[in-house]
Amino acid sequence: MGKDGMGRYTVGLDIGGTKILGALLDPEGEVVATVRRSTVHGAEGLVAGAAQAVRDVVASGGAELSALAGVGLGIPGIVDHRSGTVKHAVNLGVHDDELPLAELLSAQVGGVPVVVENDLNVAAVGAAHVLERSAGPADRAGGTGGSDGLAVAGGTDAVGGAGGTGTPGVANVSGAAGAAGEADEHEDLAFLALGTGLASGLVLDGELRRGASGAAGEIGHIPVDPLGPECPCGQRGCLERFASGKALEAAWPSRHGKPSPVELFEAARAGDEEALVVRDRFAAAVASAVRLLVLTTDVRHVVLGGGVAQLGAELLDVVQDALREQAKVSAFLGSLRLAERVRLAPTHVPVAAVGAAVLGRRG
Amino acid sequence: MGKDGMGRYTVGLDIGGTKILGALLDPEGEVVATVRRSTVHGAEGLVAGAAQAVRDVVASGGAELSALAGVGLGIPGIVDHRSGTVKHAVNLGVHDDELPLAELLSAQVGGVPVVVENDLNVAAVGAAHVLERSAGPADRAGGTGGSDGLAVAGGTDAVGGAGGTGTPGVANVSGAAGAAGEADEHEDLAFLALGTGLASGLVLDGELRRGASGAAGEIGHIPVDPLGPECPCGQRGCLERFASGKALEAAWPSRHGKPSPVELFEAARAGDEEALVVRDRFAAAVASAVRLLVLTTDVRHVVLGGGVAQLGAELLDVVQDALREQAKVSAFLGSLRLAERVRLAPTHVPVAAVGAAVLGRRG
Repeated sequence: MGKDGMGRYTVGLDIGGTKILGALLDPEGEVVATVRRSTVHGAEGLVAGAAQAVRDVVASGGAELSALAGVGLGIPGIVDHRSGTVKHAVNLGVHDDELPLAELLSAQVGGVPVVVENDLNVAAVGAAHVLERSAGPADRAGGTGGSDGLAVAGGTDAVGGAGGTGTPGVANVSGAAGAAGEADEHEDLAFLALGTGLASGLVLDGELRRGASGAAGEIGHIPVDPLGPECPCGQRGCLERFASGKALEAAWPSRHGKPSPVELFEAARAGDEEALVVRDRFAAAVASAVRLLVLTTDVRHVVLGGGVAQLGAELLDVVQDALREQAKVSAFLGSLRLAERVRLAPTHVPVAAVGAAVLGRRG
Repeated sequence: MGKDGMGRYTVGLDIGGTKILGALLDPEGEVVATVRRSTVHGAEGLVAGAAQAVRDVVASGGAELSALAGVGLGIPGIVDHRSGTVKHAVNLGVHDDELPLAELLSAQVGGVPVVVENDLNVAAVGAAHVLERSAGPADRAGGTGGSDGLAVAGGTDAVGGAGGTGTPGVANVSGAAGAAGEADEHEDLAFLALGTGLASGLVLDGELRRGASGAAGEIGHIPVDPLGPECPCGQRGCLERFASGKALEAAWPSRHGKPSPVELFEAARAGDEEALVVRDRFAAAVASAVRLLVLTTDVRHVVLGGGVAQLGAELLDVVQDALREQAKVSAFLGSLRLAERVRLAPTHVPVAAVGAAVLGRRG
C-alpha cells in the first residue's frame, strides 16, 4: 500500500469522558476498521491516547500513517474548529484555557492535518454519511424500525429502509465519499442527542450547520413551559428538563442497578401505570423536540442518538406514536409527516467517529 | 442599451393580496427602479398585472425586456419553486388547483425565465442582499436602530450600522451581486415576519434554506405554553398566538381607526398601564421567537419585518429590552448576545421584491 492512490484514507476519533472510539475510512468512505480505547484524562494523556488510537486503527485496517489525508476529532466542550483548539473540556480533565489539540495531535502522527469539531456536529455528519451510503432518495418515505443497519466494508444494509421492509439499500460507492450528489440527493438531518442533556447537530442540504457562534442545534434550552421547572441554565421550563436522560433519571430513578431509561421501559412493558405515564410524557417531550426541529429547519430526517437512544426500537415506537398523536389534532402537523422523518442512529458503527473521519477528509 | 453586457439585469415582484411591488436590479445588484401596482385578483388578471409591472419597472429603469436575465416572483401560498406553480393562493383570488405562474408570466414577457418562490423566502433573500451590500463583517456587533438605510443606485447607507452610530457603511460592489464572499462573509439571517401570523424565512451561510418540504421557518406553530390559547392550526399555545399582528389585535383592538400596534404603542408611550403590560408581553413573545431561531439555527442576524415592524425603532427597542431582560437570568443566553443580532428590515426598498430579483438572477 503505497502513498499513491491511498491519500484519501482518513481517521476519525470520538473522544468522550470515558472512551475514545476511532474509525478508519477508505477512499470510498467505507469503514474499514474501528478501535476503542479508554480515555486518559489531562492534556498530555489525552493527546498521547488519541495518537495511539490513530496508529491502532490505521494498523488494524492494514494502512499506514503516511496514507492518511487527515484526522478528524469530535470532542465535547467549546471547540474552535478554525484554530483546532478546545476550551474547558472539563470532563476530559483539560482545564487549560485553550488546548491546541489539532496541532499537538498532528505532531504525534507524522504531521497529518487534524481538524477538531464538537461532538454533536461530528455525530450529525456521521449519521448523514451512513444514511447517504445506505439508502437512495426513496428512503425519504421510509423508516419504521430496523434502523440498526450500517455500511461497513462490503456491507450495504439499509438504515431505516423504506417501509421497514428490511430490503437492503444500495450502497452509493461513487468515488469520493462524503461528496453528495445534486440538490435533492444531499443528506439533510438533525442528530438529536438524548444524552444527559438535550442538543442536536444539523446537516442541512448536505452541509454541516455550525451557526454564527457555534450554537446551532442547542434546542435543549428553548423554554416550552412558562410554569415548568427551573433549569440550571437560569431559565424555566427548558425542553431539556423534559426530554433528556437527566429528566428521565429525575422522573424514574434507577432502583435495580440498570440505567434509568432501561428500568422505566421495562416497568412500562410490565404494565406499571406510573411507568407508562412517565414514559409517554417523555416520548411526548422528545416528539416536541422533533416538531421544533422540523418547524424551524424542516430537516428531512431526525436521527435519535445519545445514551437514551440505546433503548432502540422501543424508543422509536413510542416517539413515533407520540408524533402521530400530536398530529391528530392538527392537519398542518399531519401534513409534515413527522413520524416518518424519525429514525434511530445506527449502533453498529461509531457514528460520531465516522463523522469525524468525514470532516478529517475535508480538513 | 444593447443586449450584450446587459444580460444580468433582473426584475423581482412581491405579489401580495392588495399590491404588487417590483424592483429592477442592475448587473451589480443595485436597485435602479421600483414600481407599485394594485393586485388584480384571479389568475388572468394576476398574470397580466405582473407582466405589466415587469414592463413598467424595466422601462422606468431605462432598460429593455431583452436585457433581462430573469424574473423572480414572491407570492404567498403554496409554491413549488421547481415547477414554478402556485396552489391555493386564495388571497390572490386564485382557486386553481395549480397555477403554472412562471410559465404564464414568461410567455407575456418575451420568454424571459421566471422563478417563483414563497413570500417569506424572497424577503429573507432580499434582506440578506441589502445587508450584505451595506455593511462589512464588522457589522456583526452592531444594530441598534437606524435600520432604515438601504442600498439603491449610488446610495450606501448602513443598515443597522455598528453601534447605531449612523456611520455609513461601505457598499460591496464586487461585480456579480448576490455572489457572496468566502465562508465568513456569507449573509446569515432569519427574516422574522410579524404579520397577521408569525413565520420566518432563512438564509443560512448565504443560501436560502427551503427545507425538505418547504416548511423551514414555520416557527409560528411551535407550542410554547401547554396552557396557552387554542390555535386555528389545532394545537395549543403556539408562538403565533403571542407574537403576531393577530395576537396584538386580540389583546388591544383598534379603537381610533389606526392599526392596533400603532394604537397600542401610542397608549404605552402615554403611560397607559394596561398598554404597557400588553406591549411588554408582546415584546417578550417576539424575543422568544428570536431566542428560538438562534438556539436552533444560530443565525447571525434576525431581521424584524412584516406589518408590525412598521412600528420601527420603537419596536426594535422593546424587543431588544426584552432580550436583555431574558438574558439577565442566564449567562448562557447572555453569551449569545441576542439583542445585538436583531435589526429592522429596511423600509425604503421593497425587500421582498429585491429578494425575488436576486432569485430571478439565479433561476
